[in-house]
This record gives sequence, C-alpha cells and structure tokens, in this order.
Amino acid sequence: MSMRGKFITLEGLEGVGKTTNRQFVEALLDDANIAFVGTREPGGTPLGESLRELVLAADGQVDDVTELLLMTASRVEHIARVIEPALTAGKWVLCDRFLDASIAYQGAGRQLGVERVAELHALMGVTLEPDLTILLDMPVQEGLERMAARSEPDRIEREAHAFFERARAAYLQRASDAPERVVVIDAGRSLELVQESVRQALQPILSEG
Amino acid sequence: MSMRGKFITLEGLEGVGKTTNRQFVEALLDDANIAFVGTREPGGTPLGESLRELVLAADGQVDDVTELLLMTASRVEHIARVIEPALTAGKWVLCDRFLDASIAYQGAGRQLGVERVAELHALMGVTLEPDLTILLDMPVQEGLERMAARSEPDRIEREAHAFFERARAAYLQRASDAPERVVVIDAGRSLELVQESVRQALQPILSEG
Repeated sequence: MSMRGKFITLEGLEGVGKTTNRQFVEALLDDANIAFVGTREPGGTPLGESLRELVLAADGQVDDVTELLLMTASRVEHIARVIEPALTAGKWVLCDRFLDASIAYQGAGRQLGVERVAELHALMGVTLEPDLTILLDMPVQEGLERMAARSEPDRIEREAHAFFERARAAYLQRASDAPERVVVIDAGRSLELVQESVRQALQPILSEG
Repeated sequence: MSMRGKFITLEGLEGVGKTTNRQFVEALLDDANIAFVGTREPGGTPLGESLRELVLAADGQVDDVTELLLMTASRVEHIARVIEPALTAGKWVLCDRFLDASIAYQGAGRQLGVERVAELHALMGVTLEPDLTILLDMPVQEGLERMAARSEPDRIEREAHAFFERARAAYLQRASDAPERVVVIDAGRSLELVQESVRQALQPILSEG
C-alpha cells in the first residue's frame, strides 16, 4: 500500500502564464523524484477532451447552464477515471484548473451564482479538494494584453473585460476563504520572481510528501 | 402574437413501440392542422446530438453521474434552443423522451436517486413541464424480447433486467404522482388498440388547441 498522493491545482485567468508555470512545477516534482500525473480541465479524459472541444468550439451557441453542466460532467469523469485512481495509487496529480475555475468562470463570470456552482458539485458528489492550489493573479487588463499577443482566441477568451473582472474577484475570494489551501502569486512580476514564489508555495507540501 | 403551443412528450422503455406511436401522433397533429416540431432526447440540437453520440457510444466507460450531467446538459440546451422558442412561437412540440426519462433511467435505473435528479433540474432552472405525457408501458420482459429482435443494442439497452424494472417502476410512479399530465397506455396490446388509446389521450389537448 502506497501513501495517498497529493493533489495540486493551478488556477488563474487567461494570460497569467499558467502553461509556463505548470512546466516549472512539473520540473520541480521531477527534481524531487515524485511520480505524478499532469492533466487539465476541461479535458483530461477522452470524453472530457471531446466535451472541451464541444464547449470551446461552440462559439457563443451554448447556453450558460449547459456550459456549466458540461464542465461539471468533464470534472466528474476526470475525478473518477484519472485523479482518484492516481492519488489512490500514491501518485501526485497536477491539474491545470479545477473546481475553483468553474466557481470563477461559470459562477461569477457568467453570473450563474457561485453558490449554485458549489451546490451543483455537492449534489453530484464532488467532494475532492486540492491539497494545494496555486492561483496566478494579475490585473485583468495585463492578462488580456498578453493574451492578445497570442494566437486566435477561443470563445471564452473573447468574453468582455467585465467577465474577467468578476472571475478574478471570485478567484481571490476563494483564496481568502481557504488560505490554508490557496496560495496567491502575483504573476505580473518577472518570470524569475514568479517562479521563486511558486517554488516557495510548493515547499511545505514537498517536505511532507 | 400567437397562442403558446402545447408540449407533448412520449415516454417508455425500449421496445414499447415509441417510434411507431410517435409517427402516429405526428399524423394526428398533421390531420388537425397543427404546426409542430418533432424532436427527441438526448439530442434535438447539434450539441445535443453530439452528446447523445458520446453517451451512447461510451460503452460502460462513462461514470453514472457524468451520464446524468450530460443528459441534463442536452436537455437545458434543447429547451433553450428548440422547445421554448417553438412553444413561444405558437408551435406544438412533440418530444421523444424528456425529464421523466432521466428520473426513470438515471434516477431509478442507475440508482442515482429520483430526488437527486429532480433537484439537479430545479437547481439548473429547468421548470418546463409537458402539457401531456404519453407513457407507453408493458412488462419489461416483453419489451426486452421485442428489442432483441432488432439490431445491435446500444449501451443502455444492454443493461440488466433489474435496471429496466426500476426504471419502469419510476415511470409508473411519476404517472401516479401527476395523473393530470401523464396518460399510461398499455403497450402490450395490438397496435390498433394502442393507437386507439393514443388517439383518446390526445383528444382533450386537441380540443383545447
């Protein structure tokens, strides 16, 4: 019997540098000789990836509640097929976005209600919580500018500024409600400083693990 | 401004003759010069049809809660994009399966809980109720035998006998809870007798319409 693995999530709006920092966390886990599964939401399973495609490609043609249900479906599948089996087998799981993202994007951004999103997950039996969540945060305008420098935006990325402001506020609220779980990192600084903060955020969990 | 259309659903287990009777209802509506939209669940929208394919093709690889969420997502989309717009425009809607099916199949059949399925829909804002539901009912064994005579069964159709017994009981419970909405028709009789019952079930709503 191996010890249960740790569950780490990376959160943040578009343009905050999630991909770069995810690779950095992966390198830190490798350096520490920790066996881990890297995954993402929506997605992470064949069904989840199909749902991700459906939602992102739908280009404003998907009802907001439908979107929430598809994200939740993808998450339930992801937990059952990938995350829980890995944790149980003693592997760590590093996930690019999780429940906090649905709270921020669907609950606050699309104004479906933060409480409603939480209730939906509770009703569907989602009780899994990350051991550590790294929230990369920066002012919305800055993230949008970084994003604009990249390729074709998908539907959610094309949403209005106000949408992202609501999502950011919800992310920060989640962090302040659960400071023992969520570490907020100012992602507007140099990559070197951001990565130093990521390293520090991981330190406690790495010493336990 | 046209008068709001009527919403009719057809329900029942596999093998009870839903397709044949759906065509019969369509002919009755045509005869009465009623403009209607014929549709089905899961499905009924491009997204819904994609979800239908995902669920039915997944062959036991989809978590039960995921399945429920996908069915609900398909329904929310269907209501928003197809059913409500048609009813508002004064058209009638004839739908092959609706909420009763999720109560019967996911709630009772898969034992996720009839109440839970109802709560999920309420939480997601689904308040639409059919004006008339025709429930085609027959003993499970009889339906399974009729089904076996047909082509390759999909995943849900391959489920155990007990699954269908639970689903049938839940369907009948829904009917007894809402006798003003649900007409139960003994589908084990000759097609002629079944269709005479379907005709009678439609009579009140056709006279109003």
